[in-house]
Amino acid sequence: MDLNENEMAWAEMAVTSTILRRAWEMELGQVGVTVPQALVLTFVATSAEPVTPMKLSRLMHREPHTISALLTRMQAQGLIKKERNLERGNWVRVTLTKKGKEAYERQLGARRVRNITECLSKQELESLNRMNRKLRAKGIELLRDLLPSPFGDPLW
Amino acid sequence: MDLNENEMAWAEMAVTSTILRRAWEMELGQVGVTVPQALVLTFVATSAEPVTPMKLSRLMHREPHTISALLTRMQAQGLIKKERNLERGNWVRVTLTKKGKEAYERQLGARRVRNITECLSKQELESLNRMNRKLRAKGIELLRDLLPSPFGDPLW
Repeated sequence: MDLNENEMAWAEMAVTSTILRRAWEMELGQVGVTVPQALVLTFVATSAEPVTPMKLSRLMHREPHTISALLTRMQAQGLIKKERNLERGNWVRVTLTKKGKEAYERQLGARRVRNITECLSKQELESLNRMNRKLRAKGIELLRDLLPSPFGDPLW
Repeated sequence: MDLNENEMAWAEMAVTSTILRRAWEMELGQVGVTVPQALVLTFVATSAEPVTPMKLSRLMHREPHTISALLTRMQAQGLIKKERNLERGNWVRVTLTKKGKEAYERQLGARRVRNITECLSKQELESLNRMNRKLRAKGIELLRDLLPSPFGDPLW
């Protein structure tokens, strides 16, 4: 297999992010929350604006049907409520139940993986943030090209 | 929400890696391969040593039962074969079928996401590789702590 330096870097990144994601899953698992659930709980708990399923779909970079299935499961578990707005047809606002707020607080307390960059120097951390911004911009550009339209366009 | 600079960096990394993973899934989807399948195909195609399910479990940082289910699906799709070694009891070697080798070649041709670090300078790429090594070592350390023993130990 002849990999160039970018493809070798990608292999490194893919392995590293798999390990970090796995560690995050395990740590959140100890407080009874999954990674997608933690993301929903965080977005809903911290958003100044009402959160709709479509907004979560954009924030989490996942298709509406994936988010819809996730929200249905979270509602069944008593973590969120979906409130319909009668004036705006099918507009739905996602809010946290008491149990959802407690789960949000518990996942906030799981700090080890979220502080993993403590092993980097201040300069490295700045460099990492700068590279993440570049890679994210490029990733969104690639996704725009790769996503089947017409679904792709309004989301990105 | 009061996040420190590490936790903010983590949020950036989590979003970026989600977007990159999503783009990779989409690109591989165009050649009919999933991300976990591409990893198995690559490990089996490029390994100098015989590949066992346990070895894949270590390489992919996933539990044996997850890998077992993945391999069963890939076998049903005609991508891999599991060859039993009669001399070594339950020792199983994973090999690629003709269809599996073709799928491996197709995924090799999907190069856009794997070359995404082209948007970084040479110096940044070196710095990224160095940080990935540090983060990976720390991630494996955390996983060792987080994984329920006795399963955790032999794997890491």
